[in-house]
Amino acid sequence: MQQVIGIDLGGTNLRVAVVNEDGTLVKETSTPTDSDRGPEAIIEDMIRFITDFQVEFPGITGVGIGSPGPLDAETGVILNPPNLPGWKHVPLTKQIREAVNLPVFLENDANVAALAEATSGAGVGHESVYYITWSTGIGGGFVLKGKLQPGSAGYAGEIGNMIVQPGGTQYATLNPGALEAVASGTAIGLEGKRQLGIDGGAEVVFNLANKGNTEAKRIIDDAMDYLAIGIANITFALDPSLFILGGGVMQAGDELLTSLHEKVHSILYEGQKVEMKKATLGGKAGVIGAAQLALA
Amino acid sequence: MQQVIGIDLGGTNLRVAVVNEDGTLVKETSTPTDSDRGPEAIIEDMIRFITDFQVEFPGITGVGIGSPGPLDAETGVILNPPNLPGWKHVPLTKQIREAVNLPVFLENDANVAALAEATSGAGVGHESVYYITWSTGIGGGFVLKGKLQPGSAGYAGEIGNMIVQPGGTQYATLNPGALEAVASGTAIGLEGKRQLGIDGGAEVVFNLANKGNTEAKRIIDDAMDYLAIGIANITFALDPSLFILGGGVMQAGDELLTSLHEKVHSILYEGQKVEMKKATLGGKAGVIGAAQLALA
Repeated sequence: MQQVIGIDLGGTNLRVAVVNEDGTLVKETSTPTDSDRGPEAIIEDMIRFITDFQVEFPGITGVGIGSPGPLDAETGVILNPPNLPGWKHVPLTKQIREAVNLPVFLENDANVAALAEATSGAGVGHESVYYITWSTGIGGGFVLKGKLQPGSAGYAGEIGNMIVQPGGTQYATLNPGALEAVASGTAIGLEGKRQLGIDGGAEVVFNLANKGNTEAKRIIDDAMDYLAIGIANITFALDPSLFILGGGVMQAGDELLTSLHEKVHSILYEGQKVEMKKATLGGKAGVIGAAQLALA
Repeated sequence: MQQVIGIDLGGTNLRVAVVNEDGTLVKETSTPTDSDRGPEAIIEDMIRFITDFQVEFPGITGVGIGSPGPLDAETGVILNPPNLPGWKHVPLTKQIREAVNLPVFLENDANVAALAEATSGAGVGHESVYYITWSTGIGGGFVLKGKLQPGSAGYAGEIGNMIVQPGGTQYATLNPGALEAVASGTAIGLEGKRQLGIDGGAEVVFNLANKGNTEAKRIIDDAMDYLAIGIANITFALDPSLFILGGGVMQAGDELLTSLHEKVHSILYEGQKVEMKKATLGGKAGVIGAAQLALA
């Protein structure tokens, strides 16, 4: 059985794992990214983890890396991710390849999670899967017949910038009324501050809602209305056989998926259906999906 | 070279053609659909045209049919299209197959036009093509590597029902603020009546705009703003390498494509690009795309 290495380069932790071709995780190691150290020190860590694994698993055939964007998957260069301060135009795959003499692949973290969930997680058995991460931001990825579809220039899955409320709330460099600006965890937190005067972000809004606070409930409900529009619009464009919902906000309660499912169906044609599931791989999606980039 | 028959069953005309596997049209015949005659008479016409072509081109290997929806492509049944009055749950492919002893395939007309334009029209050489028909209605189809992607239940391309103005204008059975309700030829015509008191639909609004009427120009510009949101949102979800714009409204002026292209780019990320072209096959898209359904 083919074995490859998956690397999840996150803003907080660097995770490196040996993964079988069937998606099972064989062995994993991790260290805080501690991004203040700068890219060279972190790349040294990666290379050390890989070479250690090469000794233990001599049959390893390749390395896949998932990283925050923006990045250029084709050339393997990390451009300047807000979540990796100090990384500016780092030719990551080239540096790793030269050090470990293996083929190395790079993709953004949402696409990597999409690939993992579609082929080894909630999407097993489904022909076309649209993965959505509902977190501080909103991103996604499209997987068709087990193959990631990054789009013609790597922008597929950038659904956080889809306009769902023309002329609406603006946030960061996104479009006014962008999905992420009106439905993300960040958006929920900002509305909590604006409407209820609370700090602490989405988590506090969810806690208040769970205690019965009507205004907090309405803030969450409004965000879900917009997320439902985003999901329904993707369904009209593409009609995937399954949506998988991952990300931190999805952890706030089991009833979220049910409620979102109802809202989406209120927008679809009469009789039209779409299946929606919660992501199942949790924190492992990053290394498993990254490894799958390296499978022949 | 493989030869197949393509049938374009339209509300106005029935067109039947022999098409080579490279998409070239060999011979075509047509008759008014005259849908008052009912499905049986029209199906008899189809069968007669096919059997005549079978005598002249004995190597014909299959038949593809494009029809207004709703229909069930998998079972080959036409459900109850508004544009084909009297057609209710007609098992079209079964009836044709039993009469002519050839495999018969069915798809909705927007998907068929998408397939034709992607593989034999403006999309030649492009890996992923999203076709949009901007006409009395708004529809589309997604073609990846030459293969139509109708979606898990045939709803891919139903972009006319995407919400681009939540809580906005409602039209027919579509969602409030659906793309078709705010950006179609019908929508432009209705706004012309509402704002300018004119009858005659989108054509009259375009004529007024061409003569310099500021309000007519604004009606068209508003519609294009929403269409641009729809195109940009599909780009964020899918990032196709090309959009092809067809349909009657696109005939109103060459500057429409340029203007739409600018509007879409004002929504995309800085540096992000998308290619857009006008459809090239015109009325032939229906028979050519239908024929391609039948190619092995």
